[in-house]
Amino acid sequence: MKRFTQRTITLLIAAGMGLATTAAWSAESLQDVLKRRNLSQQDLLAAAKTYVPTGKRDEFIAFSSGGQSGQVIVYGIPSMRILKYIGVFTPEPWQGYGYDEESKKVLAGGRIDGKDITWGDTHHPGFSETNGEADGQFLFINDKANPRLAVLDLRDFETKQIVVNPIMKSEHGGAFVTPNTDYVIETVQYAAPLENKKFYPLEEFNEKYRGGITYWKFDRKEGKIDPKQSFSLELPPYSQDLADAGKGPSDGWSFNNSFCSERYVGGIEKGRPPYEAGCSAKDTDYMHVINWKRAAELVKEGKAKKINGHDVLMMDTAIKEGILFLIPEPKSPHGVDVTPDGTKIVVAGKLDTHVSVYSFDKIMAAIKAGKIESKDPYGIPVLSMKDTLHTQVSLGLGPLHTQFDSKPCVAYTSLYVDSQVAKWDFCEGKVLDKISVHYNIGHLMTMEGDTTKPAGRYLVALNKLSIDRFNPVGPLHPQNHQLIDISNDKMQLIYDMPIPLGEPHYVVAIDAKKLKPGVRYKLGTDSRTDKPHPAAVRAGEERTEKKGNKIEVFGSLIRSHITPETIEAEIGDEVTIHLTNLERAQDETHGFTVSTYNVHASVEPGKTVTVKFKADKEGVYPYYCTEFCSALHLEMQGYLLVKPKGWKATKTTLAAGNYTEAEYKAIVKKVADTQTVIDSVVGYITSVNYKDFPDAVAMVEDAFDQIGKTKGLKEKHEAFAAKKDWENAALWAEQIWQYQVKCADLGIRAKTHLEQNGAKKVK
Amino acid sequence: MKRFTQRTITLLIAAGMGLATTAAWSAESLQDVLKRRNLSQQDLLAAAKTYVPTGKRDEFIAFSSGGQSGQVIVYGIPSMRILKYIGVFTPEPWQGYGYDEESKKVLAGGRIDGKDITWGDTHHPGFSETNGEADGQFLFINDKANPRLAVLDLRDFETKQIVVNPIMKSEHGGAFVTPNTDYVIETVQYAAPLENKKFYPLEEFNEKYRGGITYWKFDRKEGKIDPKQSFSLELPPYSQDLADAGKGPSDGWSFNNSFCSERYVGGIEKGRPPYEAGCSAKDTDYMHVINWKRAAELVKEGKAKKINGHDVLMMDTAIKEGILFLIPEPKSPHGVDVTPDGTKIVVAGKLDTHVSVYSFDKIMAAIKAGKIESKDPYGIPVLSMKDTLHTQVSLGLGPLHTQFDSKPCVAYTSLYVDSQVAKWDFCEGKVLDKISVHYNIGHLMTMEGDTTKPAGRYLVALNKLSIDRFNPVGPLHPQNHQLIDISNDKMQLIYDMPIPLGEPHYVVAIDAKKLKPGVRYKLGTDSRTDKPHPAAVRAGEERTEKKGNKIEVFGSLIRSHITPETIEAEIGDEVTIHLTNLERAQDETHGFTVSTYNVHASVEPGKTVTVKFKADKEGVYPYYCTEFCSALHLEMQGYLLVKPKGWKATKTTLAAGNYTEAEYKAIVKKVADTQTVIDSVVGYITSVNYKDFPDAVAMVEDAFDQIGKTKGLKEKHEAFAAKKDWENAALWAEQIWQYQVKCADLGIRAKTHLEQNGAKKVK
Repeated sequence: MKRFTQRTITLLIAAGMGLATTAAWSAESLQDVLKRRNLSQQDLLAAAKTYVPTGKRDEFIAFSSGGQSGQVIVYGIPSMRILKYIGVFTPEPWQGYGYDEESKKVLAGGRIDGKDITWGDTHHPGFSETNGEADGQFLFINDKANPRLAVLDLRDFETKQIVVNPIMKSEHGGAFVTPNTDYVIETVQYAAPLENKKFYPLEEFNEKYRGGITYWKFDRKEGKIDPKQSFSLELPPYSQDLADAGKGPSDGWSFNNSFCSERYVGGIEKGRPPYEAGCSAKDTDYMHVINWKRAAELVKEGKAKKINGHDVLMMDTAIKEGILFLIPEPKSPHGVDVTPDGTKIVVAGKLDTHVSVYSFDKIMAAIKAGKIESKDPYGIPVLSMKDTLHTQVSLGLGPLHTQFDSKPCVAYTSLYVDSQVAKWDFCEGKVLDKISVHYNIGHLMTMEGDTTKPAGRYLVALNKLSIDRFNPVGPLHPQNHQLIDISNDKMQLIYDMPIPLGEPHYVVAIDAKKLKPGVRYKLGTDSRTDKPHPAAVRAGEERTEKKGNKIEVFGSLIRSHITPETIEAEIGDEVTIHLTNLERAQDETHGFTVSTYNVHASVEPGKTVTVKFKADKEGVYPYYCTEFCSALHLEMQGYLLVKPKGWKATKTTLAAGNYTEAEYKAIVKKVADTQTVIDSVVGYITSVNYKDFPDAVAMVEDAFDQIGKTKGLKEKHEAFAAKKDWENAALWAEQIWQYQVKCADLGIRAKTHLEQNGAKKVK
Repeated sequence: MKRFTQRTITLLIAAGMGLATTAAWSAESLQDVLKRRNLSQQDLLAAAKTYVPTGKRDEFIAFSSGGQSGQVIVYGIPSMRILKYIGVFTPEPWQGYGYDEESKKVLAGGRIDGKDITWGDTHHPGFSETNGEADGQFLFINDKANPRLAVLDLRDFETKQIVVNPIMKSEHGGAFVTPNTDYVIETVQYAAPLENKKFYPLEEFNEKYRGGITYWKFDRKEGKIDPKQSFSLELPPYSQDLADAGKGPSDGWSFNNSFCSERYVGGIEKGRPPYEAGCSAKDTDYMHVINWKRAAELVKEGKAKKINGHDVLMMDTAIKEGILFLIPEPKSPHGVDVTPDGTKIVVAGKLDTHVSVYSFDKIMAAIKAGKIESKDPYGIPVLSMKDTLHTQVSLGLGPLHTQFDSKPCVAYTSLYVDSQVAKWDFCEGKVLDKISVHYNIGHLMTMEGDTTKPAGRYLVALNKLSIDRFNPVGPLHPQNHQLIDISNDKMQLIYDMPIPLGEPHYVVAIDAKKLKPGVRYKLGTDSRTDKPHPAAVRAGEERTEKKGNKIEVFGSLIRSHITPETIEAEIGDEVTIHLTNLERAQDETHGFTVSTYNVHASVEPGKTVTVKFKADKEGVYPYYCTEFCSALHLEMQGYLLVKPKGWKATKTTLAAGNYTEAEYKAIVKKVADTQTVIDSVVGYITSVNYKDFPDAVAMVEDAFDQIGKTKGLKEKHEAFAAKKDWENAALWAEQIWQYQVKCADLGIRAKTHLEQNGAKKVK
């Protein structure tokens, strides 16, 4: 391809494209740029496929695990720009997550054995589904290191709940969602005794250590997991791994794979072969096939055993009731994926070259016919591969995870060792295309590719640590997500994206149009409960209450002041500060911190948050708004005064400012001049069809809000002037100007927005 | 412009560009893509200017404050891809930062009044400089909320030191570096008593509250701030703001601006005008002009006063010694920027429309001539604007921060209210160009734009919260950094970049070629001290020591096992685990965690880290490698066993595996077959000029390392086979295969790398 590039481009420009040589907006032509930057035709095409111009939107939104950062990463496709890190298992101060009292309660839901866990190893995100389709309402994600599951609300992209798995000490597979989000599935990784804090030696591994699978009941109306309605199955001490819920014909069943069904116990320090040898010595592990709908009924019928207060269906019961089966699968697989139509289940054993496609019909037929090949050491019936396989396809070295296309029968599987993606036909069992990716791909992901209606278009390859893709940033490299265009017969690699924080294990993506997040909260909302905050205030209701050694501030934030501007405490007082953001403009987030007291809050418009601390050191501690919220952002400040016990004031008046009548009059003139500017901006706005632009309308409303706050201030400064109190006269006049500046700022923003978006003159 | 687009492109394709219709790699032509994605010519040009193809590098590397995330963000220009978040003031589990003992010590340096501060409000990054040029060795960044300064080493992009400002309760301006990095400058934001934990009422604001400026001494050889050699100046209780060090002719002096020189105290809750009115009522604030070189000498001469154990030059001394002057500046400025040649100082008062260009020569002349206009309330001599101004230029509404071009006399200033960037000539005092940016720009930044040798090319506009630029992600929006091409006469906006975590306050960028970070550590390094770690091990030196209730593990990590694979403790034991990563391959980072014990480590090749915890709960807790390090990553596991006090084993043998001679022989055959694959890959590699490719050479060396580990294993499995111990025979043979898989993996990676990078056949 390269040979075409320079020459063709030169010709084309010479031939009269005139793309840039005559263009006013740049002195450099496209030809110049391609030459200077050494870009090929293919590069230019890839750039055109991924570039999202200013103000335009991405087509899909990806939600990626943030790996050991404990967070969720949100990015746009095809631009691969990261839009947000959402605090999930790890405190995140920018969001106030883990710093305000409301979010501390969410994190407290994830305490284990009475202690805070301040991080997580997030692994598998999963969308809530309706009829098997991603519905854009909720996202679930698990913590492998400390078995937990989190619920994120996609109305505000905040974490609302964390639940701790009651029987697991390690998990990997989760969150997998049933087609109507009745349950969220989580599976054990490394086996351990199910009873909490119970020790058994490794010598009793086969008898006392167990795997398991948990079905978390989701209450969609509450937007919360209901632990009381959730249950688990006891499973053998094989390392259960990923899972998937059946759909369509296979709805009601779930499938999960496993590794180390050898039940090997390592001990390299004692001269035993390590886990890696003992856990992959046999040719096959087991796919677990579970009838979860029947299991849920059995739990309701009282057939579960309580372990750590949680309902667990024991293996004996599951076997007796015929809801648990095993099928051999090529060894050490990672990923079990149900096809969009629900008829087949794809498993890739990463130490084999094949993907295995199992037929749900055949599985059911074998079960019905009682065609049991054998039983595992725990008595679980094992169906044969022969009886249940649809086909096996040799794809290459290290097949790992499979996702689906919008085109029927088309699947994509990552090849770890070959560092490739294979496109193949799971109906016919044949390879269609292969593409090389950056080294060592783990999972891969297509748009809504694990739902009943995959959207096709793009595929993301999740590659491990990048050594030669990006500018070096020290020994700890970013990961590399590569974007591949799958619209056409041949796959095309179009973008390399570094992941700057955490090692994403898996990612899911949804059509951007399905997401409809809010832009502000209803005034006085506790965003973590979505309920009215009991300590919210409206403008004018701010107050400070002191009872004994407890100080409670009911404050507010609005451009550009904090009410109150002084908080007085005595040493040892407990200080609680509730803050309501009174703004309506969607980007008027305010932050709040008190110097060296280790509190921070992020207060989006309408939100109310609470910070708490003990005033345990005497002195003077400034507080301020930590968001760049307006031109006067730096003046959005105040002082916490922590006085010695029993301190008595000797001086009771603040130093007077030094203001003259001339200064007062100059400010009054400035106010009048600024009003002329505002009037001219208003003149422009009302001369065009601004009402057709919702963002402009919002800014105009906000501008009127701001100017509305000047009500009464003219009378006020004039009254002070009449009394020759030039300081108060000047400052209250100045305060009018403050509001004018904000009003003008908004008006100019609205004007720019209208100009940039093609507003038209109206008569 | 739009009218050209479709038609011209159509013509051009028709005219024979043949860009894509006949290209094999895609079914979609450039024309199709532009039409489908509704891209204009200008969009395509911008895409071509910013797209970085797979494997290619960015030209500049930006280091951005991470705002309230407390971290530093590293991104590439022009692709605007984020390469890394570096943990600085906030614990960051992916990096083990704040989770391993080594980094806990760094964070402990930032404890205030004996307590952990678990976040920061990072504001101004600054590079170390040599002769006024960014040298790519260190980065400094400050914490506004809890006045602290951090040192990052750009050899490994890790935070090495945090120091707490001994006299400030709030700061904003920092880190500003003197031309040879002798000092790093930090300035107070909100005034408070300088004495630690000292309360004075607001009524004594003028008398007892103070501002200040600190000059932190940097020891380049140690790579650390030396607090004992650092000093401060007491300053009036004006809110000191940003600063800059003189350079060239002005070297030895520093300049900082201020706001609220009114010394206004708010109290909106008591009916007083708020801070925003009282702090910006007067037309001017003060630029502070300080002879820091002379100040440092005065401190050495013993003229400083100790406050909180720290050397502070009091205002009276500074005045008497003639090293401190004030000059009026238009009110409420943010940014004071010394021109690259050091002759001028640019200040923009954000509530005025002008930038003011002061002449260093004129300042010196006025000082020399004793032309003192007045004195401030503290007796500091005030020079006049008239005597010191070079020129003033009206740029627009809300001028804020200025950066410089590689072209002489060319500067860029952000206009907050106008939401524009102005390009202007600071010699001639005229406007050259303006460009609209997304709403409300704060700082802006050009490449090495605050050094003596700006690099030109690009400008980044740091805009506040984006409301309509990106797909919505809930009420808390990302920020927006816009990339502007400044190579030509007219500025061109070429990229919108969302910032997903934290509100970056400022950013600096450096030519990528100046950075030469390491890719691995010398074996056994404590990366936070850059010294050999006392608990490092080499392969074979791993051991566990128990003394009383203290367990100390000297372990190692290597693909794909942790040594040891079992750690036994009694309840209540203190467990210390040291882990050395024995890998040499640069991307073989391993992670480590113990289930629910809230520890995590990131262990890059060569690094040794320590995690510590109390085994305070009985039971079985899996540990594992948290990085996706190899195909057998999931098998890189072990168990922490926490036994009850006095527990005695009754069963002392592990369950035997079930292996047959046939299985053993099958594994032996697999090993032989795999060797054939390896040989063929080696055949390819040695058939080309692989030695010309350092990355390939590294992979080949690593592949040989891996296969080298099989030494002795053949004898071992054959000896077990001779004894008919089929389990041990099979597993040790299997272990050979494990190493073969890693060797093959690397060989295939090397092969792909060579193929992709045009390796040539050698004879």
